[in-house]
Parts: sequence; structure tokens; C-alpha cells
Amino acid sequence: MAYKQKKYSGYSTKKMGQKTSFKSSQKLKIMVLGGLEEVGRNMTLLEYGQDIIIIDMGLQFPEEDMPGIDYIIPNISYLKGKEKNIKGVVITHSHYDHIGAIPHIIPKIGNPIIYTAKLSVGIIQKRQEEYKNLPKLKFYTIDEKSKLNLGSFNVEFFRVNHNIPDSFGVVVHTPVGTIIHTGDFKIDHSPINDIPADLNKIARIGAQNVLALMADSTNAEEEGHQISETHVSRELERIFEDAKGRIIVGTFASLLNRVQQIITMAEKFNRKVMIEGRSMRTNVEISHKLGYLKIKPGTLIESENYNPRKYPDDKIIIIGSGAQGEQNAFLVRFANDEHRYLQVKEGDTIIFSSSVVPGNERTIQNLKDTLYRKGAKVIHYKMMDVHAGGHAKKEDLKLIIRLLKPQYYIPIEANHYMLRINGEVAESIGIPKENIFIANNGQIMEFTKKGGRLTNEFVPTDYVMVDGLGVGDISNIVLRDRRVMAADGMLVVIATIQGKTGKLMGNPDIISRGFVYMKENKKLIESTRMKVKKICEDTDTKSPAFDDFIKNKIRDEIGQYLYKQTKRRPMILPVVIKV
Amino acid sequence: MAYKQKKYSGYSTKKMGQKTSFKSSQKLKIMVLGGLEEVGRNMTLLEYGQDIIIIDMGLQFPEEDMPGIDYIIPNISYLKGKEKNIKGVVITHSHYDHIGAIPHIIPKIGNPIIYTAKLSVGIIQKRQEEYKNLPKLKFYTIDEKSKLNLGSFNVEFFRVNHNIPDSFGVVVHTPVGTIIHTGDFKIDHSPINDIPADLNKIARIGAQNVLALMADSTNAEEEGHQISETHVSRELERIFEDAKGRIIVGTFASLLNRVQQIITMAEKFNRKVMIEGRSMRTNVEISHKLGYLKIKPGTLIESENYNPRKYPDDKIIIIGSGAQGEQNAFLVRFANDEHRYLQVKEGDTIIFSSSVVPGNERTIQNLKDTLYRKGAKVIHYKMMDVHAGGHAKKEDLKLIIRLLKPQYYIPIEANHYMLRINGEVAESIGIPKENIFIANNGQIMEFTKKGGRLTNEFVPTDYVMVDGLGVGDISNIVLRDRRVMAADGMLVVIATIQGKTGKLMGNPDIISRGFVYMKENKKLIESTRMKVKKICEDTDTKSPAFDDFIKNKIRDEIGQYLYKQTKRRPMILPVVIKV
Repeated sequence: MAYKQKKYSGYSTKKMGQKTSFKSSQKLKIMVLGGLEEVGRNMTLLEYGQDIIIIDMGLQFPEEDMPGIDYIIPNISYLKGKEKNIKGVVITHSHYDHIGAIPHIIPKIGNPIIYTAKLSVGIIQKRQEEYKNLPKLKFYTIDEKSKLNLGSFNVEFFRVNHNIPDSFGVVVHTPVGTIIHTGDFKIDHSPINDIPADLNKIARIGAQNVLALMADSTNAEEEGHQISETHVSRELERIFEDAKGRIIVGTFASLLNRVQQIITMAEKFNRKVMIEGRSMRTNVEISHKLGYLKIKPGTLIESENYNPRKYPDDKIIIIGSGAQGEQNAFLVRFANDEHRYLQVKEGDTIIFSSSVVPGNERTIQNLKDTLYRKGAKVIHYKMMDVHAGGHAKKEDLKLIIRLLKPQYYIPIEANHYMLRINGEVAESIGIPKENIFIANNGQIMEFTKKGGRLTNEFVPTDYVMVDGLGVGDISNIVLRDRRVMAADGMLVVIATIQGKTGKLMGNPDIISRGFVYMKENKKLIESTRMKVKKICEDTDTKSPAFDDFIKNKIRDEIGQYLYKQTKRRPMILPVVIKV
Repeated sequence: MAYKQKKYSGYSTKKMGQKTSFKSSQKLKIMVLGGLEEVGRNMTLLEYGQDIIIIDMGLQFPEEDMPGIDYIIPNISYLKGKEKNIKGVVITHSHYDHIGAIPHIIPKIGNPIIYTAKLSVGIIQKRQEEYKNLPKLKFYTIDEKSKLNLGSFNVEFFRVNHNIPDSFGVVVHTPVGTIIHTGDFKIDHSPINDIPADLNKIARIGAQNVLALMADSTNAEEEGHQISETHVSRELERIFEDAKGRIIVGTFASLLNRVQQIITMAEKFNRKVMIEGRSMRTNVEISHKLGYLKIKPGTLIESENYNPRKYPDDKIIIIGSGAQGEQNAFLVRFANDEHRYLQVKEGDTIIFSSSVVPGNERTIQNLKDTLYRKGAKVIHYKMMDVHAGGHAKKEDLKLIIRLLKPQYYIPIEANHYMLRINGEVAESIGIPKENIFIANNGQIMEFTKKGGRLTNEFVPTDYVMVDGLGVGDISNIVLRDRRVMAADGMLVVIATIQGKTGKLMGNPDIISRGFVYMKENKKLIESTRMKVKKICEDTDTKSPAFDDFIKNKIRDEIGQYLYKQTKRRPMILPVVIKV
């Protein structure tokens, strides 16, 4: 499974320059392909001479004006023709905004080796099984002691905390200086099921002159320090002490540390645990197998074998996905009586243990309503600290900046606005404003031994959308059509013309979908039909380009007519058939 | 303008029972048609014998799964045949979730008199101008001293605070007891441009035995008291002191008290004010004309006459709509360089002075990004208290419950979950649980002199959707079609069959919209065409119901084929033409 990798025996910053041959005029280029204008599709390129390394390869969930799109992946046009230069792909941790584009991109860039920690290897491999006929992924498993030589780059790692074990920051020693990429991180001195962020190692790295720090901006707007998972545990314990009935916890399948907390708590309170939701089960299975989840034998039971007489309500806990109200996820099916074995009942305590992803507020509100109606008690993070975010807040950012003492600061992993806020944090503790690069996706940053600059050159980062099996085949035209049809539906107008005489045969056909309900709008449909008839009869069918002419005429005139009648603008699709 | 109304000379609770003839067995029914399962479409009926009064008549903005819908209005099926019983419509204040359905409903229920305060009359009348051919509205203007006799009901009012002046709570003395409806409210001891909520009057009403209190639940989840507008003013003042360039404030056009604050502040700091956005201008104009906005002569200037040499940046403030990122609103056009006279520039301070409506988070984030990119500084309510909500928080609710001392408590104006939270607030200060009615839309509450109960009977409250000129004509089928087409587009398949021979003429036509881009997917389209051809050739055209049969066959088989090829499910629209 693990791919062979020649380890190098260690280095100092001084040695490194001598080892690799390079012209002193050569530049290091940093290009962030995604994650500077959005949350998601994180992917960063470091290029020096003929060598490229990639950090992360994530997906982004679609914006509101992209109906039907599954997700968006980074644009890799810049790598075309440079496949051979890619010395490796480093993955910081195994959340989808950092790994989700792997199945789509890796085969297209020559299947380079993926360098990542044990748990991430497991999760990436599991996801890869969903895609058929792809070349086998090549992995090299890293940990906090790993030192890699990837072309001109020497790479090492430091542990950070996040909501999933095995999250790492990346240290890239380049010929012009050391670049740090934090990945997603927080600093938790008392994490659950995880090792505290290695502040000592981070400080030692900081002692060796850091050229630039690329740091997580997700929570840069929040004051203070991120709360510790131990605090969340204490709050959960209070709920466990009070709950007389079943406890149901909804969270992300990827918040594995939260899942561990709940399982540990269940064992303490002698409750049996059911794991629900496909992704949740998969993640628990992988991380249990790899030793990242500690579960006592007999703790887990299956909902299909659940016998309420054997296990009374106060001996049961259910952990499931769906706290964002995701369609088909466990919590939603559970709330709507669509689960095969489990239903909500009076006395249930339901904990929403996750943050609310922007855009999901109303859906979650509806889900809570449904649960409340069925007599359940709902607890969420506004009421108690049943969730801790996975990202550094202002004070955490200050701490890591102080420890690493970078010359340049590059906020990453958020919308532009949040990058600016993160930049202000750095400025507030003494990083000079001109050394803070608020870049856009694809904007090239150049570093030499003399220093760095944010250029005005860009590599392509246009959206690449994934819709079903199609990658990048959804154009703006297709999306525009979807939006038009979503707003006001469509009307197909079919006119059959006799080829010889050029005469309209019979009455035109009209089919409406999503515009008005035809049975209840017979008059409108009939008057539209007569208008089409008249347009056809008034048009000279012998004229050149008759087809396009009459189609445009139908589109314009019928469109205007319907707008006047209804103030709606359905898509008009004229079909002219010549027989 | 004001409609004549016989005032009654005053009453005591005792007298009232004697005045109106009623059987002691007669019941008061309270039915909330909208606002118990959502935010919006607020409308409450009180019915006693042959008398009905209506409180509020609002609209609701559509849910996410209702593409293209403009808004939703209350269902008035219950009032059919009872038009004559309607003794009046009381409007608590002039926000659209309380007045927005008036143009659609009032003409259908016999054009009853609308009882509301002066500013609300102005705003309702202005909006009515957008609708043509409607009967003229009939108004009776009320204030805190008004006492109305509406059939069996005697109605009076008490001032509350909200984000718009002239917001009132309603006291309805019925033959079985007094019902209070708070409308939207907060308690502000130091409001701006408004009179503090009349706590003394509220207490006096509470001294006369209140049967039931219907109270705003919108902010029931929030701890403490709502912050005062004076506090907001102080924060705004700090921003005014620091700002070296222009100040731009984005807010709701309906937050008139905020607009007043900013204008007053502008005058204090010698800045000229531009009002931008159609609804903002309209509201400012009406409320200025009616004396609800105090503006010194010369304070307002027009953007079309704005001469930057005459008024330097630190002498300018712009107030506009669009803080929710609403399409076509001022702030969005301003950010995107689509405004005719005004553009963002370096040094602008832009204040988002409103809460974020759930669902708008991402849009607002994008708007802020755009403004930041152009060098503006953005300030919003998370960073400073530049906004105060218009609704009672937990401690405000407790105060009004203590003052009114109701026997029954009915949380209104929010999602179910929030009603429950509001109910818990009441329970926590001693209202017995069985006297707290958490009702659903349309669920009938009955009160007699002996007490009240929440029945299990319902009046109709199904969605009535407004789309363009259509009211209630969008069915679930139409919406479902829109959703399908939004997700994966559609494919029209046209087969022409010769009537005599029953043979397919030529190749079938295929048109795709929102599914795949046809030019780039010629192979797929071609193979689909061949499949359709085969289906047509293999089907016996002489069989009965051939048309339906072959259409279903095309729909099923082509649908499956395309799903297998693309993992997308476009709507398949088969058209069979016989010539």
C-alpha cells in the first residue's frame, strides 16, 4: 500500500541551498488555485524551476446560482504539459474540501504520489472505491517525524488540531526560504482523541527563519481562542446526566473527534451506541480499523437488531449524520419517519453537534421544527457548547504568528473579506502591511532570497463543475438555461409545416412544464396557440432562413405575450417540423 | 381619506358583556392563518358568533424549494361566505410580513375597513398604487387613544417599539375576556425617533384580567434584553468620528428609525445625505411627508446632482437598500459599478446596519468581498453594535408577561421551534404549561368564560403562492417540474409518425436545454437519437393507446440510458407528431 520513498537523512537550512543546484536569480512561485475566494476547493502549487509540489486537492460545494451542480473542483490548466515536474501531492488532512478533487485530478496529472498521514490514506482510498476504472493511487504515509525530499523542496510536518485526527501543518524548505502552510487548524491544549498541536516543534521551526506563513482564515473574524474539545465534553456530560430517554447526536461524518467523545461518554454512562448514515459508518469503520477510534467491545449495536426491551431508552445513544439537514442523511430520515428501524419519540434528546454551514439555516430550522413537534428536546450550539469549531480564532492566529515569526503572511482558506480580516490580525501584531499578501485565486506570488512580491499575473482558475459523471462539461449556457427554467418553467411550441406547400398543418402543439398548469389555464394556452398559428400563417415560408426567422419570431412574440398576461418569463422553445 | 367610524364612548369589562347580546355558551375562536410555522404571512382571525376581526395580513418570502415564486400569502378559504361578518382589519405596523397580502386579499373579502396608524396608512396606500383596477382601500386611522367597537369586539391599542414608527399592540375585549396581540415588538426605553413602549398603559391593561396574550417569538431564543437604539446611535457616532471618507449605510428600506438616526447623525457631523434605492426613497418620502422623519432643509441631496468638488468625501453619507444582497438593490449595484452616479472608492466606510436574514449569508459574504476588493472598509453587526433587532428577547418577554399577567399564553410569529422556546420562557415565570398553546397554522383555539383550549380542529392554511400576476395558480406539479429542470435540465424528443403507414419519418429530433451542451456532446445526442428510433420502430403503431405507450417508453428507456451515461436525470419530454 505504502509507496516507496527515498528518505533523506535530515538537513539544515544552510545545507539545503548547497544540495540543490539553482541559479540565484531563480524564483519560487506560489499559486493558490482555490480557497482564496471561497470556502473549499483548496489547492496550492509551489513551483521552483522544474519542480512543482501540490498541497491539498479539495472540492467546493456549489454556489446558489448553480442549480444541479454536485461540486466544483480546482482548475488545473496550469499543470498541463508540466505533469512530469510534479514531485508530489501533500494532503494536510482528510476533509473533502482538501481531498475531494483527488479522483478527478490525480489521473490527469500523471498519478503522482500522495504524501499524507495514515488516517487520510484510509479515507482517500475508501472514497476512491466509488470511482471505477481509475489508476490505483500511490501513497506515502507521513507523520510528525517524516522528512521528505521532493525535488528542490524538503518537506516536513507538524501536528495541529482540527476536528479530525491526523491533521498536519506543512513546512516546505525551498531554495529561497521556508514556506509554512497550516492546513485547517486550531490549537487545543486538551483535545479529545488527539495529540495537542506541537507548539514546541512549531517554535523550533520559527527559530530557523520562516519566509512566509500561509494560514487558515476560516475563523479569523472570531475574537479570543477556539474552545477546547474538553469543554465540549463537559457540556455533553451534563446532558448525559440529565437525559432520561434516548440521546441522538447529529454531527458531520467527518468530525471524528466528536464521534470519539460521544462514544467515550456513552461507555461511561453505560449506553449502547448505534452509528447511522452511510458516510458516518464508513468513517467510523475506517478510523476504528486504523486505531483512530477507541471503542470497547460490545458498545456498538446495529439498529436492525435493536430490541427496545433489551435496551431501555436510557441505555441508548444514536450518532448520525444530517445535522445540516442534508437530504437523505440519517437525521432527516429519522425526523420524517423514513428510517427503517428508528423513529423519533417523546423524551428523546437530540443534540445538533456541529456549526451551521451558511445557507443551511432554514433547512435546519425546519428539521428542528419537525423534531420538536414529535416531542423531542433539541439542543444546539447556541444553547450549550455542544460544538467547538475546528479553526483558529484571532488569538490562536496571533499565537502561531508569534511562534513562527514569518517575514511574509498569506491568509488562505476563506472568502476575500475574511482573508482581509486575517491580514489585519497579523498587522496588529507587527507584520508590516506590505508583507501581507491578500491574493486572489491563481494570483502568482514570487519569492527570491531577497524577498517576495504579489504579482499581477494569474494562472487560470475558472470554475470546473462536476455534475454526475461530467467534469467541466457544464457551460454557462447550460446553467443559465437551468436558472430560467427554474424561475418560470418552459413552453414548447411545435408547428408542423408541409414541405411542398409551406403551409401549417393543423394547429400548433403547446406543451408547458413548470410555467402554468395546463389543465387550469386552457384559455391562456388556447390564445397562445392561436397567436402561434397567426405568426406561421403570416410568414413567408419560402424565404431563406425561414426556420430561424420563424423560431425567433415565435420566441419574441409569444414571450412578450405571455409576460404581459402573466408577468412570467418562461423559456420558449419553438420547434418547426417540415414534412 | 379617513373612513368614518362611529366611536364608542369607552367601556369597562363589565359593561361590555351587557352591551353585546350573546349566549353564555358561545365561544370565541382564535385562528392564526399564518405565522405559526414560519416567519411571515402573519394573519390572525378572531371570531365570535357572527363577528370576525382580522389582525394583520402579511406575506412570506418563498422557501428554498419554491423556485420562481414571488411570495406566499395567507389562505382565506375559511372566510369564504363569511365576508359580511368581517367587522374590520387591524394592522399592527407597516412591514411587509404584516401588510403584504392586502392588495391580494382585501378585494376578495368585501373590502372591509383597515384600522391602522397614520404611517401605516401612508405605506399601505403607496404600495396599493402598484396594483391596478383594485377597489379603493378604506382606512380608519388609529392611535394610542383610539377605542373601536367592531361588532362583539371592543378594540384599543398600546404603543410598542419596533424598527418602524407607529407600531402598536392590539387589545381586543371580547365577550369572554381580553385578548392581547403584541404585533412585532421590543421594549426600548430610549428609542430614536419614537415614543417608548407604553409600559404604564400595558400595566393598566394587565390589571383588568387578561385572558390570553399572543406574543412575538422572533427573538425568544436570545438571552437578555434587546439593545436600545440609543446604544446603536453611540456606536454609529464612533464610526462617524473616525471616518475620513464617505460613509455608506446599507439597511432595510423599512427600518425607518435607523434611517432617522443616520440622518440626525449626518446633520450633527455636517454631512449631506443621499437616499438611494426605490423603496428607500418611497419610504423616506412618505414618512417625511407624514412627519415621521425629521430632516433639516438642505440635508438631502440628489446623487444625479452630486458634485464631488462641492461636497468632499468627508461631507457625504449615502443611505441605501441592499444590505441583504438583494438583486437590483442599491448596495449591490453600487458594489458592481452598475449605479449611474455612484461608485465605490478607496476610503469609503460601508456599514451593514441590519441583521442577516437566514439564507442570505453567502450572498452577503460575496457582496462584502466585492466592496473590500475595491478598497472600502466594511463594518457589520458582528464587529460593532450597528444594528439592534426589532424584537423582544427573553427578558423583554418576561417583562411584558409580568405586566399583562395573562391566563393563557400563545406564542406567535416564528417557526414552531421558536414558539416552543417562547412557551418555555412563559413557563419559566409561572404560566402553567397547560395554559400555553403552541398551535399550528389554522389550529382553532376556543375560549369561553370558563377558559380556553387548543382544539384539534383546523381551518385551511395550504400555501397560496404569488407568481407574477398569478395568485394561487402554481400547483405542486408546476413546482416539481421547475425543480427537476433546475437540477438536470430537460430533453425534448420529437418523433414524427406517418399516419397512414404508422412509420417513423426521418430521424427523431432531440433538443436539450440545461442538460448538456449539445455542440459538445454530439456523440451522446446521436446515440440517444438512435435509441429513440429503435423504440419507435419496435413499437406497433397500430396498437390502441399507442401515443401514451410510446411516450412512456421513450421517457423510461431514454431516462435510464441518460442516467447511466451521465448520472443526471433530465426531464424527458416526448412529443409524437402524426401527419
